[in-house]
Amino acid sequence: MFESESQRNQRDALLKLRASFLIPKEIIYLNGNSLGPLQSKVRERLDEVVSLEWGEDLIMGWNKHNWFDLPMRVGEKIAPLIGAASGQVVSCDSISINLFKLLASALELRPGRTQILTQIDNFPTDLYVAQGMEQLLGKSRCELVLKPAKDIVSAMNAKVAVLMLSHVNFRDGAVHDMAMITEKAHQAGILVIWDLAHSAGVLQLELDEWGVDFAVGCGYKFLNGGPGAPSYVYVNRSLHGEFSQPLKGWMGHEKPFEFDPSFLPAEGVRQFISGTPQILSLVALESALDIFCGVEIALLQERTVALAEHFLELISKAPGLKDFQLESPTEPLKRGAQLAFSHPEAYAICRAWAEEGVIADFRAPNLLRIGFSPMILSFEEIDLAVEKLVGVIIEERFLNQKFQERLRVT
Amino acid sequence: MFESESQRNQRDALLKLRASFLIPKEIIYLNGNSLGPLQSKVRERLDEVVSLEWGEDLIMGWNKHNWFDLPMRVGEKIAPLIGAASGQVVSCDSISINLFKLLASALELRPGRTQILTQIDNFPTDLYVAQGMEQLLGKSRCELVLKPAKDIVSAMNAKVAVLMLSHVNFRDGAVHDMAMITEKAHQAGILVIWDLAHSAGVLQLELDEWGVDFAVGCGYKFLNGGPGAPSYVYVNRSLHGEFSQPLKGWMGHEKPFEFDPSFLPAEGVRQFISGTPQILSLVALESALDIFCGVEIALLQERTVALAEHFLELISKAPGLKDFQLESPTEPLKRGAQLAFSHPEAYAICRAWAEEGVIADFRAPNLLRIGFSPMILSFEEIDLAVEKLVGVIIEERFLNQKFQERLRVT
Repeated sequence: MFESESQRNQRDALLKLRASFLIPKEIIYLNGNSLGPLQSKVRERLDEVVSLEWGEDLIMGWNKHNWFDLPMRVGEKIAPLIGAASGQVVSCDSISINLFKLLASALELRPGRTQILTQIDNFPTDLYVAQGMEQLLGKSRCELVLKPAKDIVSAMNAKVAVLMLSHVNFRDGAVHDMAMITEKAHQAGILVIWDLAHSAGVLQLELDEWGVDFAVGCGYKFLNGGPGAPSYVYVNRSLHGEFSQPLKGWMGHEKPFEFDPSFLPAEGVRQFISGTPQILSLVALESALDIFCGVEIALLQERTVALAEHFLELISKAPGLKDFQLESPTEPLKRGAQLAFSHPEAYAICRAWAEEGVIADFRAPNLLRIGFSPMILSFEEIDLAVEKLVGVIIEERFLNQKFQERLRVT
Repeated sequence: MFESESQRNQRDALLKLRASFLIPKEIIYLNGNSLGPLQSKVRERLDEVVSLEWGEDLIMGWNKHNWFDLPMRVGEKIAPLIGAASGQVVSCDSISINLFKLLASALELRPGRTQILTQIDNFPTDLYVAQGMEQLLGKSRCELVLKPAKDIVSAMNAKVAVLMLSHVNFRDGAVHDMAMITEKAHQAGILVIWDLAHSAGVLQLELDEWGVDFAVGCGYKFLNGGPGAPSYVYVNRSLHGEFSQPLKGWMGHEKPFEFDPSFLPAEGVRQFISGTPQILSLVALESALDIFCGVEIALLQERTVALAEHFLELISKAPGLKDFQLESPTEPLKRGAQLAFSHPEAYAICRAWAEEGVIADFRAPNLLRIGFSPMILSFEEIDLAVEKLVGVIIEERFLNQKFQERLRVT
């Protein structure tokens, strides 16, 4: 395959990104899909904001550093990562809160339709938000319909107001065909909300091109914004001026400092800002996003795939790993930046592996979830990680963890 | 007046608190009621969390440092400041979001009643949240009733489900009699939500004793938690097990890591945590609260009153300040930790005063708002601030600001 000079240069540049992160030397971090690591620049920037912008400028910080626009500034930095043109993304609150805003907006845009359609094994918080909405509005106005992935398209009918799906399944990493499903939903008059928690920053997304209506995502996984980093909301420009979200707060007002007793929504996605944003967390996310500047997501995805395929190849040849059952799709483009394996001793193995410095993730009851953050992992680390995994299994080091766990539980 | 040895010691200790804050030497900060200043310990603690707890412990930080309990830990630190026994306060989200949760909970607890009663000049975000609820539920289920302060009690009737008030008015600092109003509301079968944004940390509050049902507050004013610091929610223990808030998220689930598709609310106020909390902002607030440990709020309030009274006395005697009209209650216990003066040139004066290093607050159209944070201000600073104000007026230095503002506007 020929590549352009620009792509070759970018690929070289990609390898240099690792140096920006402060991961301890003894750790191989296969969990960037839960909490992305710290960059030295983020640490410095946050200290600057705390010491100078808050510490010295005090209340003047709001004007001097324009914290009012921070949610929109962060949104502008996220937009190119998800294939969104300017002015359609804002960063604020959590995924749960933002989903509530979007579900209400979508229901209002589809009067006469009452159903929220989603996948039965969607990430629980997405389901809980919809349950909260159902409880608040009553089933006559809002009814949650849960279907397995394979039945989503056939469940699209004229009762469904909005389809809410996670692009990448949090357990097995299976990816939905966002373009196709969005199109099918639109054919049935249904609005779509995509949760990009496990895709933004590692998978190529073209929200504008695919005609997506709404999306949410989080800042703390592949965007590396820090623990509990703020979420973001995408609203397709074609819906601006149409929607009205119900969690109205002064920072989403057209003119917050006129202290008008009546709410007048700010134009576009800015109305999704409700109360005062948590500036320190937002600043960390803003700074963390700089590393994506000039990086093609397609190359990040390519590297993610290569790392995961390398892992799979090693696993398939390694001695003693036959009990690991791949639960993720085998086709690289049908999964996110993670692999999930079931194993009866997944918990103990995950713990024992961590003792060797390899940090993966356990998901009850028996899943070992392994994330392939393309900016921070090398092929050599994958080699070493698998070598250590083999050691854990062959030398049965996980049995000790299992024993300790039994002690803990009893 | 006799004082106990303990009180005398505390009063001495109070004067030493100032040294914990990193306010620039040339600044007299009369705006702690908008954004509290930075403490050196908060800066250090935040850097520690970023560098070590996130940077080195990565995903393990959640368990190792129990970030899951952080919202409750912060709540426990706020509880004694507002007269709440343990287990009734949790810190999360913003005031706007939390008010939405509480309004919905209150409406559900009063079936058959539809009105939200509030004050017409309440802080706008409180009004906007109620407007959002009214729009979402429809007027048949939720109707916002706005009354001037003097008519609140007479508007309490059997249609009102919930009374939502700010304890201290954000403009003039007027304080409601929380105990009396809560009692009257209860006599009429009405639940109460108090917004403590401008009172917690400076005014003595006895939420348990006064039988308050619900309260919210913010972390960035007198609690000094940093720009946009998280809010908190108080729910009286008598209502635990009764209420159900609609913004359901996985962190408010009884067992978040079982990934149960059905929402089961965590016990007590923990269910108010919706999505993943913004840990960095929450950690700053947690650290900022330590300074209140062992400090009697009554003494802080006493000092606030003394500082404000000293300011008023100086103003009354100073030359050239006759155009300043006090808009706050004259009786110290009937106002919060702030004084508001109207003046036709309030904006320009506020700017010119800031040029002299005295930071107060302008509120359109003509209010100069002055905050008296008891931990950071000395009587000498009040002397100097008034001296500088006299200079600004007598030497008409504010006219230059006025001129510049005209240039900016045109």
